[in-house]
Amino acid sequence: MKVIHAADAMQRLALQWRKSNQRVALVPTMGYLHAGHLSLVHEARRRVGPAGLVVLSIYVNPTQFAPHEDLSRYPRDFARDRQLCRKAGVDVIFAPDNEAMYPGKEQGQYSTFVVEEVLGRELEGGTRPTHFRGVTTVVAKLFNLVLPELAVFGAKDFQQSAILRRMVKDLNFPIEMVVAPTVREPDGLAMSSRNKYLSRSERRTALVLSYGMEVARRLLLRHPGGLPVQKVVDPVARIINSQPAARLDYLAFVDPLTLQPQKRVRPGVQMTLAVFVGKTRLIDNTRL
Amino acid sequence: MKVIHAADAMQRLALQWRKSNQRVALVPTMGYLHAGHLSLVHEARRRVGPAGLVVLSIYVNPTQFAPHEDLSRYPRDFARDRQLCRKAGVDVIFAPDNEAMYPGKEQGQYSTFVVEEVLGRELEGGTRPTHFRGVTTVVAKLFNLVLPELAVFGAKDFQQSAILRRMVKDLNFPIEMVVAPTVREPDGLAMSSRNKYLSRSERRTALVLSYGMEVARRLLLRHPGGLPVQKVVDPVARIINSQPAARLDYLAFVDPLTLQPQKRVRPGVQMTLAVFVGKTRLIDNTRL
Repeated sequence: MKVIHAADAMQRLALQWRKSNQRVALVPTMGYLHAGHLSLVHEARRRVGPAGLVVLSIYVNPTQFAPHEDLSRYPRDFARDRQLCRKAGVDVIFAPDNEAMYPGKEQGQYSTFVVEEVLGRELEGGTRPTHFRGVTTVVAKLFNLVLPELAVFGAKDFQQSAILRRMVKDLNFPIEMVVAPTVREPDGLAMSSRNKYLSRSERRTALVLSYGMEVARRLLLRHPGGLPVQKVVDPVARIINSQPAARLDYLAFVDPLTLQPQKRVRPGVQMTLAVFVGKTRLIDNTRL
Repeated sequence: MKVIHAADAMQRLALQWRKSNQRVALVPTMGYLHAGHLSLVHEARRRVGPAGLVVLSIYVNPTQFAPHEDLSRYPRDFARDRQLCRKAGVDVIFAPDNEAMYPGKEQGQYSTFVVEEVLGRELEGGTRPTHFRGVTTVVAKLFNLVLPELAVFGAKDFQQSAILRRMVKDLNFPIEMVVAPTVREPDGLAMSSRNKYLSRSERRTALVLSYGMEVARRLLLRHPGGLPVQKVVDPVARIINSQPAARLDYLAFVDPLTLQPQKRVRPGVQMTLAVFVGKTRLIDNTRL
């Protein structure tokens, strides 16, 4: 397994691979890997085959964090990540630093961004207005540096996947977007590097996200023809906010492709929510 | 010579070329070709060699025109363009329509743009605030559809080249930007498809652009150590605005890479200007 830090070295290698017609899959991450990330690596391997190449990028991208967010304290453990990657059969870790990704940014020498202007306005984009612009920009850069034929993302970041899929289509990237299912702890909590922030009691409180989705699912089972959104929002919000350490940020029922808010909760609708547990903001989603 | 209209057909072919390691150069144009465009084709051929492939794209990109601009009357003559391309040795004309480039845009299904936020603010961007966002977006799309190793642009669109070079660097496109010199009519007027708009008397008036640059050059010859910007702006502006049919839009002396306005006109400074001649807006530039 190779570890590459320089952007130009990564791209040179990618161009060599291209010349020899190697199959390449990219798994973009912010590191501090967990079983969710590793499931993306396995999906990537399954797609490119044993002779293909799986690149996992590790980069905590500053442009997707707002000034008040958790950029500086975002968990990092490169030694552990490297070990996990080796075991999972990753071929190359691409781990650039900020100067490799945004050279001269502090001096105004970096000035190009990729923006998606419709799907990113609400939900995560409502709470984090500059977040997706950072995500689309860095992913476009990673695409051009690694030149993969496919890239694997996690379903937990539901809106992110929808936006990146739109970016790939709109900007005609010759890349297949693969979205792999969310991996959960045995008790239902979606795997996330940010779970590390949770105290022991917050860890218990964090179950309100998956429990809230379960409540919605059960309501829908009793009303197979669907029911008005408010009839689901009210009880789920009540359950979440009844936990002293929890505060619902948003809860929405949207079309899984256009992200348009739905008036009725019906089978096939995407339920998506964000909850502050203490100071930690967690997200989750499910297709009902 | 092949003519391709569909975006997916273009990309399929480009991916085939990639598999067989063909060298590919792209010459993006809005059609209505003149000797300036053909010089770009020759430069492209020179770079990829006789066995390489030269793709010329013809697309009058609506996202780089403001509503009041000349999108609908921009000159078009595909039959003539095709003939010129065949003679010039173009291998593929890529001539998509709006539905191929921005599918579903009217229905809100197109929403991703590439924006450059520093170099595009002044000069052309000052007069045409949404212009470069359209240019960077369509060129990023063309890069991903044609997958060239190099792209050739004309020096006449000086600020455009600077912005696209920045985009290529910032977003890490694995593409070499080549900028070929401006081709001029025998009397000095820079070749432009928009010259077609000029009446006979306006055609004569249009010489104020190249003449204004000549005046600046002569002033600089007399002051080889440089002179304050205003000492050049004033006489050149006076000459241009003294023509009844001409109105100076802007005249600037900038750093050729950062586009920062300079206080003194010195050798190496880029002079760039835009002039309305009647209703037609013409641009030109030169390195002093």
